[in-house]
Amino acid sequence: MKKRILVIGGLAAGPSAASKAVRTNPNAEVTLFEQGEHISYGICEIPYYISGEVDERGLIAYTPERLKERKGVDARVLHKVEEIIPSKRKIVVHDIRNGMSREEQYDRLIVATGSRPRLLGVDGENARNVFTVKSLENAFNIMRYMETEKPKRAVIVGGGYIGMEMADALRHRGLEVMLLHRHSLPMVGLERETRERVREELEKNSVHFVAHARTQGFAVDKQQRVTHVMTSDGSYEADIVILSLGVVPRSDVAQAAGIRVGSSGGILTDQRQQTNVDNIYAAGDCCEVRNLVNNKSMFIPLATSASKAAWVAGENAAGGKATFKGVIRAIAVKVFDLEVVQVGISSEEASNSGFDVVTETITAWDKVSIMQGSTKVWIKTIADRKTGRLLGANLIGAHGAVLRANTLAVAIQHRLTIDQMQQWDLAYSPPFTPLWDPILIAANATRKKLSP
Amino acid sequence: MKKRILVIGGLAAGPSAASKAVRTNPNAEVTLFEQGEHISYGICEIPYYISGEVDERGLIAYTPERLKERKGVDARVLHKVEEIIPSKRKIVVHDIRNGMSREEQYDRLIVATGSRPRLLGVDGENARNVFTVKSLENAFNIMRYMETEKPKRAVIVGGGYIGMEMADALRHRGLEVMLLHRHSLPMVGLERETRERVREELEKNSVHFVAHARTQGFAVDKQQRVTHVMTSDGSYEADIVILSLGVVPRSDVAQAAGIRVGSSGGILTDQRQQTNVDNIYAAGDCCEVRNLVNNKSMFIPLATSASKAAWVAGENAAGGKATFKGVIRAIAVKVFDLEVVQVGISSEEASNSGFDVVTETITAWDKVSIMQGSTKVWIKTIADRKTGRLLGANLIGAHGAVLRANTLAVAIQHRLTIDQMQQWDLAYSPPFTPLWDPILIAANATRKKLSP
Repeated sequence: MKKRILVIGGLAAGPSAASKAVRTNPNAEVTLFEQGEHISYGICEIPYYISGEVDERGLIAYTPERLKERKGVDARVLHKVEEIIPSKRKIVVHDIRNGMSREEQYDRLIVATGSRPRLLGVDGENARNVFTVKSLENAFNIMRYMETEKPKRAVIVGGGYIGMEMADALRHRGLEVMLLHRHSLPMVGLERETRERVREELEKNSVHFVAHARTQGFAVDKQQRVTHVMTSDGSYEADIVILSLGVVPRSDVAQAAGIRVGSSGGILTDQRQQTNVDNIYAAGDCCEVRNLVNNKSMFIPLATSASKAAWVAGENAAGGKATFKGVIRAIAVKVFDLEVVQVGISSEEASNSGFDVVTETITAWDKVSIMQGSTKVWIKTIADRKTGRLLGANLIGAHGAVLRANTLAVAIQHRLTIDQMQQWDLAYSPPFTPLWDPILIAANATRKKLSP
Repeated sequence: MKKRILVIGGLAAGPSAASKAVRTNPNAEVTLFEQGEHISYGICEIPYYISGEVDERGLIAYTPERLKERKGVDARVLHKVEEIIPSKRKIVVHDIRNGMSREEQYDRLIVATGSRPRLLGVDGENARNVFTVKSLENAFNIMRYMETEKPKRAVIVGGGYIGMEMADALRHRGLEVMLLHRHSLPMVGLERETRERVREELEKNSVHFVAHARTQGFAVDKQQRVTHVMTSDGSYEADIVILSLGVVPRSDVAQAAGIRVGSSGGILTDQRQQTNVDNIYAAGDCCEVRNLVNNKSMFIPLATSASKAAWVAGENAAGGKATFKGVIRAIAVKVFDLEVVQVGISSEEASNSGFDVVTETITAWDKVSIMQGSTKVWIKTIADRKTGRLLGANLIGAHGAVLRANTLAVAIQHRLTIDQMQQWDLAYSPPFTPLWDPILIAANATRKKLSP
């Protein structure tokens, strides 16, 4: 009999895991259930769709038909999995279209239920001009509202990276943008200096950043539209509201089946993406992931780790022996004209993890300074005095900050020391890089601080 | 008494070594001798000066006055060192201005005599419109000739990276450009596919590439100008001729003093940049350098290794204990609209070094394909089947090939395996990078080839 692999969740990790399972065992019967209308789309591209930079056809990688044809995966949309019954190796699936529920048998199950947007839990939050940015449906709803009602004033609640990208997108479309944030500076988790620079960039681009703003409620008119956002220190007019308060793991069905989760609510797996329950694997935003820098299990909902974990879950569910060791956490975000990047852990996390933290900051030219188009890159390094290891870095620049951060990411992942980095032999050519690349300048400066 | 450190050579490694020596021991008396008129300038920027993209003020990092003031180094230009007498710890210096020679005592000597351009050794080579691209004087002479005589047809002899940059520069200035090369494809040492792509790019930009052309002589008119370049299969009209045939180590004075050189003629040093002769250090293009990939001593005349070796020579000459382990060789060159990069060893070198070579090529988008400005990056990996190590790579792209190559350079330098690279956690953001960065796609494809 054919091995039956079921996958719950069709956004990113689900289709990846399902496709990998078919590739690993072409005889397996692989079926995927997704509660929404669409599968396999680019969440990370949504802000660029909203801004008008990419069109909607570009967002969807696979329709169910194409996934079947190209990858051999049977995907059923508008099917919500309500229950996992490990003792019977069954799941209960609710068909949203006909309202019927039925049981489906599995040999192996892959949970890829993703995350859900964090909400405020205040009155007016479900008004029709309040949107999260977590699904294709959200994106289409935002676009439809923008086109039909032509909002002029946008209020974004939450200053994380989606908040930054949405601020950029809505300014790009010509809206007035106000960004309400609970903390003094945007982008919690990044270094203070980075966050200050991001705030400046927001203000330079006429985004009105309101610090220490706790959103307490929304004033809603008779057309079910928010007109004002009420905060701890005043109310702000709004024609459209974007909630970008982060996400939480969607693990309730898994938890109800006895699958273990961490303190974040994210599912815990081993390096083979196996949960504590036999025959059940998990991958993606519904999981915690090992942070290789401080060896802690953390909730790090990023597409990069989701896709790698999904391949491993798919391969192993189909009988393979792959491993996914974890991440260092690499986050890049475009804030108007800047590339803003974090790799590894922050100085605060490093201190909390028991490292003897040494930080250094440098600013250097991204190419030979006299060449046309040269711009400056700012780098903050976070190192451990005892071992000399690089633990993390923040980078900001107009060009090349992300790709330079990726080189530092490799150093962090392989636990290289600042001394080793100083010996790096990197390419040099005036139109592309200076003789001493900014990352070497950062290594040299950090070295001096480590052993003065 | 003050320790006296003498440095021979003022281009790149010399001033770096001298400055580092002063920083290491501020009480040392550090004097540098340079036979030319200028010190401390950017050879690598010369093609961009010729093209008109940067002006001459940008080329010189330090005048002798500034080097004295900022770095505490006494630099004497137009002083040619004729002899090293290790038994007396003296050098014989010829003052070109007054024609006098005198002896100078040293406690430590640093040889940084650089390289000299390879020549053809044929008649007419010293005509006044034949130029090499190896010094600031060369650059000024080329510019003066261009401005006064307005040449229209340039013939470049030699298709290495200086040949590429000069072809680009002269086309930029509107000249017709013919490139004569001894081999079938430009850029010897790079992979065949890379070289084919470079040839296409040259032709796309109206550079007439002549393969298998052996230059046998020059026809010179009464004004001492070359009018025709004679080759094995025909002669070509020329108003200006650029010789870019590579360089050879300038080590004659060192050799005469008993300093050991390798098969290339480059000085051999240990990891502390010490030569076989007591109290004599060497750094820069006059030296061979250890290739960390195949552990061979090679002549790799690049500013990046020169500057690192110079720091180590300067520090150790002043009493420090620094080491420079070697290079992997990282070469980047702009060929019109392309970034062309080589890191590590070639497939041919790898075979010759006894590796069981596996290569793979991929083409991938440099950012999310639907984003504006996305372009493709081509990567060829060179790996060892036995160890799974990455040994080298060639990259070509319009944007980001150089910085991606630098990440691969780190993998090569630290002897990482393709399996390890597959686990890399890199930043992803649609405007900057795709979900699977091209270097991860290359790693995945190579992995399949290593273990099918």
